[in-house]
Formats: sequence, structure tokens, C-alpha cells
Amino acid sequence: MANGIYKPFWLDGESLVIIDQTKLPFSYETLKLVTPDQAIAAVKNMNVRGAGVIGNVGAFGVYLAALSTDKNSAGNLDKIKSIAQQIRIARPTAVNLTWAVDRVIRILENSYNSGRDLIETAKQEAIKICDEDVENSAKIGKFGCDRLQEISNAKSGKTVNILTHCNAGWLAIVDSGSALAPIYEAQARGMDIHVWVDETRPRNQGAFLTAWELQQAGIKHTIIADNTGGLLMQYGMVDMCIVGADRVTRRGDVINKIGTYLKALAARDNNVPFYVALPSSTFDFELIDGIKEVEIETRNPDEVLYMQGLNDQGTVTKIRIAPESSQAINYGFDITPNHLVTGLITENGICAANQTAIADLKPKTA
Amino acid sequence: MANGIYKPFWLDGESLVIIDQTKLPFSYETLKLVTPDQAIAAVKNMNVRGAGVIGNVGAFGVYLAALSTDKNSAGNLDKIKSIAQQIRIARPTAVNLTWAVDRVIRILENSYNSGRDLIETAKQEAIKICDEDVENSAKIGKFGCDRLQEISNAKSGKTVNILTHCNAGWLAIVDSGSALAPIYEAQARGMDIHVWVDETRPRNQGAFLTAWELQQAGIKHTIIADNTGGLLMQYGMVDMCIVGADRVTRRGDVINKIGTYLKALAARDNNVPFYVALPSSTFDFELIDGIKEVEIETRNPDEVLYMQGLNDQGTVTKIRIAPESSQAINYGFDITPNHLVTGLITENGICAANQTAIADLKPKTA
Repeated sequence: MANGIYKPFWLDGESLVIIDQTKLPFSYETLKLVTPDQAIAAVKNMNVRGAGVIGNVGAFGVYLAALSTDKNSAGNLDKIKSIAQQIRIARPTAVNLTWAVDRVIRILENSYNSGRDLIETAKQEAIKICDEDVENSAKIGKFGCDRLQEISNAKSGKTVNILTHCNAGWLAIVDSGSALAPIYEAQARGMDIHVWVDETRPRNQGAFLTAWELQQAGIKHTIIADNTGGLLMQYGMVDMCIVGADRVTRRGDVINKIGTYLKALAARDNNVPFYVALPSSTFDFELIDGIKEVEIETRNPDEVLYMQGLNDQGTVTKIRIAPESSQAINYGFDITPNHLVTGLITENGICAANQTAIADLKPKTA
Repeated sequence: MANGIYKPFWLDGESLVIIDQTKLPFSYETLKLVTPDQAIAAVKNMNVRGAGVIGNVGAFGVYLAALSTDKNSAGNLDKIKSIAQQIRIARPTAVNLTWAVDRVIRILENSYNSGRDLIETAKQEAIKICDEDVENSAKIGKFGCDRLQEISNAKSGKTVNILTHCNAGWLAIVDSGSALAPIYEAQARGMDIHVWVDETRPRNQGAFLTAWELQQAGIKHTIIADNTGGLLMQYGMVDMCIVGADRVTRRGDVINKIGTYLKALAARDNNVPFYVALPSSTFDFELIDGIKEVEIETRNPDEVLYMQGLNDQGTVTKIRIAPESSQAINYGFDITPNHLVTGLITENGICAANQTAIADLKPKTA
């Protein structure tokens, strides 16, 4: 696995180093994960986040679990599996986490039966998952960018305005993201693009992470309050919405960062194409109805009641932004019903958000 | 004019005292407005805000303008009118401001012709507008609460959950608000109610002002990120939405705080009744199509890029919440097309959001 600048984590000897995403954009800090417990904590506390990346860290977490045991035995495999069970529930929503952990565990079971080294096997499978993500991300970028190109052509090369919510860039899925991959590709193709960045309360992944990524890449962007996208669409100032996903049901209902659904409604109301970009590992074929079958994660209300940023001395400061005695509730995701989705951009191409089209997209090897 | 605790301003000799709403909920401070320029600045800087209240302050601003002149002459009237012109454009969206200023000016013109005292006339007309707002607010409360009562009955008295956006309470319209008036009335009637308070980025009038009002009044409430209301509606956790308005066209398009439109879309998608509460002075009969005919106010992008709150020493602190070199845009309002509005709650009753129904509601004296 290459230690590219577009990876939010990398191997360093027998540990995994991650960019601490809770510190961005105010400081660039890394964390070294040596034990599986540290990997679990990093996912829970959102030091790493983003569907793909928590899948990757989950897979490397199994490698750390294997390292934490000392011999290649059936007891050892059981111990790894028991730790893996803790890893896979570190966060509930992104299906990539359970998908990646289960995939490494399956390989380990086979390896144990054929006498192979569990530690090296886990490591190689985690690297493989990550390398596949890189490849998928590039393909998503190309497929998605073709749609941007059509819009650009229709506008005779005038600026294409894209609205995105939360962060689905290289901090979320190595190494150019899902939703941001077509945007990076558009930049590479020399298209004139501009991105409306939803702030994405309460954790501000838009203003903190997406804006930071785009600014690093020199892509034109403007931060907006989450409330603003509807008006921009009413005014014809959005040509396309692209968001990522944490889980997509087999009929195409999209579970993504809270607020996605509201933008999808506005896009439909204003005839703005609304695309969801995802690697196939984000599909959950066990589920059909996103609203009835998915339990949405609630997180600490303090994420709503407090905000972090730089004070006038340049020090990272946390402030309370609500009356002392008021309470909050903090749902992490919502569900965008498939009928609001123009298309799903995957590494296997773009398809309509319905059961037949999604089934047809499945990689032939599955 | 009574100095009730539910008034966000009051007369003190020849000045108007206002509660400084930019300081809430972290401290309760007042500002004394002596000159019309101070009134204009208070409206511009949002020390006072809310459609009704900026109308009131506009009217009293004309009184301060009259006080700032020294004799009762035609030249004096011209001077007052020239200042009034500055007052009426202090903020562009709430029609109540121009409505109230123009109403006082019309009275002054008549007074001048009949030799009456301009200062006293301006003062009395401003007081009259304010007293009418009190009356209208009470009526809006009663009409709106009847709808809440129906829901409460249908739920056999179980908690009625109301979602509101921004602040349309007594800080916005004396003396129980527009959107919050039915909620205060429901409390008075002993109904079991709970309010979902949209944070309302970027200026957080929900978390700062509505939560503060409800907490003062002992009404159950929960602050949510603006992104959350859609999911709550998908989950059946919202029985009714009630919002205020800054301007309503004669066919019922609603110009209100940015983000209102997104909630209206979600309400429609989930069959949740969506009501807009307003005194009739908020209708703008000059306008039909809210999207085509209204220019939406843009404010300083710093309102998006910075946030204010209490640090861990309890000191009000401003922090930057975006990368140093990222830009923002800050639209203040959006337009909810009339077809998304279940009903308009006015002092003259509740009507459908269409031209005929609104015309029929006009006070008979108009």
C-alpha cells in the first residue's frame, strides 16, 4: 500500500497511522493505532470517519487484532473473531465496516484451515480492500465526471455548479472519495467547476473536511449553511447534487448523513439531478426499505450543543451554542427514498436507483 | 404601551429601549435608542430582528426622527420623511418594516395638514401598531391552537410534537409571537406539547432565541440541527410544523428564514401539516410570485464562517469554523411556494395559501 498524500491512513511497521479528522481543518495531526482497541476508539470517536475509510480501518483493525495474539492456533482465531465482533459494531450505519471486517475474517478462516499465517493474511487482505477502494474511487470519478461533462457541454463550458453534503472525499474513501471523485476528475479534465459545500451540522464535515480538501486541491468552492441549498436550487444555481452514502438498500434507498434527504427533496422539486456515489461495498442487499429497516445512529447531544473552532488567538476552542438548560437530540443519518435519486454512481457504472438496475450492476464475480 | 415582560422593547422617556437579541441566550442586555440612526443600526445589526419587531422599531424610529427635529413645519416633515426612507430600507425582506414606517408617515402627513403635533402623533401611532400586534398575536395563538387541539384530541391527549424554524416568538412579534403564539396558548390550555427547535444556521435564532423563550416559559423542547427535521418527519415524530414569515405574497408564497422551504418539502412528503403564522401586515399584496419577484437579502459571510458561544470559562467567545481561506455565501431567506403550505394562521382566522382565500381574509376596513 502506497503512502500517498491522498490517503487518510497508512501502515507504519506494525501500526496504522491515521490523520486525526477531528482536528481538521485547524491542525493536521496523526494518531498511531497499535491495538485493536485503539482502532475501535478511533472509529467511535470519529478520528476516522467516512464509509470507506472506517471499512479500511476496520479491516486493519482485524490485522491489529491478529498482531495482538501470539500464536497461530484455533484459539487465536477465535480471539481475533471475538475482537472483530467489537470492531464491526464500533459504528452502526456504514455497511462498509461490517463488510470489510467480515471479509478479512472469512479469509482468516480459510487461511487457518490451510495453515497460512493469520497476521500476514489479515494484513494483505486489508491492503487489498484498500487498493480496491482506490481503483473503485477512480472509476466512480470517471463515470460521474461524464455526467458533469454533459452538463458542461450543455452550458457551453460555463461553470458547472455542484452541491455536496458532508464529506465523501479522499478523507472518507481512498483516494479521491465517492462524491468528490467526479469533481477531482473534472478538475483533471480541465472543466470549469464550482462546489457548494454544505456546512453539515452538527459535526461540520462539509465546512471542516470538504472545504479543506477542495482548498488543498485548488478547486473553487463556497461554504453554505445547510439551510441554503434549497434556495440555490430555486434560483437555478445548482447544476447537479452529488453525495456519498453509508448504506444503500437493494432497492436504492440511501442512508447518508443527516440532511441529505432534504437536499434530495429540493433537487426533485427543482429538476436538479441528484446523484449518489458509492463503491459497491456500500450496498446492503439484506435491506429493502431504508425507512422501516434501518435504525439510525444517535450520537452525543453535545455535538449539537457545542462547537469547536479557532478563537481570535488562533487556539482551538470549544463553545456552548445553546442555553444552559436546553437539551438536544443528535441523529446522524437520514434516508433518501430511491425515487428521489437520479442515479447511483458506482465503480461498475451508473444505474437507476431500483432493485433491478442495482442487481444488474453487481460484479459478475459475486 | 405596557412594559410587559413579553415585550422585546419599551419606551423610556424619549428613547426606545430594546433587548439586545445578539447577546441572548448568553446574557440579557438592553440598548437605549435615542436617535433614528441608532434605530437603523439596531435593525441592520439585528440587535432587534423578527418581522413584527423590526416593524415596531421602524415605527418608533420615525418617532425618534420627529424628536430629532425641532419644529413643526413642512421642512420638518420633509426631514422626517427623508430619515424614514433610510429606516424603511434598513433591512429588505420583512415587509412589516416598510408597512409600519409608511403607516406612521401617512399619519404625519395628515397631522401636518391638520396642524397636530408631529412628535406626539408619531409616538401614538407607533404605540397603536404595537398594541395591534399584541392583539393580533393573541388571536393567531387562539386560531393556531385550535388546530393543535384537534391533533391532541386525535392523539387522545398524548404529546403533540411541533417543529418550528428560526424564532417567531415574543422576541419577534409582541407579545407571544406568530409561530410560537399557538404554542404559548396550548400551554395556557394545559395541553401536552413538545417543540422541536431547529438550530437555524447561520445565526442560530432557534437555538439562541426560541430555545431561550421556551426554556423561560417552561415549555418542553429539544434543539435539533437544521438537517434533522426530515428524518423526524419520516419517523412520524412531528405532528405539525409552524413557522413565521417575513413576507407573504398575495397568492401565499412565503418568504421566511432560509431553510423553511426544505422543511415544507419534507412536511409535504410525509403528510405533516405545515402552517405559517403571520399578522396581516406581513402580506405583500404587490407581489404574486415569491421566487421571481423577491430579491433575497445576502448578509455578511462571516455569519457563516464564525460562531459565537460560551467558552469553558463562561466567556462569550467567537470562533472561526471553516478553513482560513474558504469563502461562504449567506442568503437570509428562502421561498416556500404556496402549494406546500397547509394554511396561513392570521389574526383574521386560518386560510388556505391561495389568492382568493387570502383576499377574503383581508380586514373589512381595508
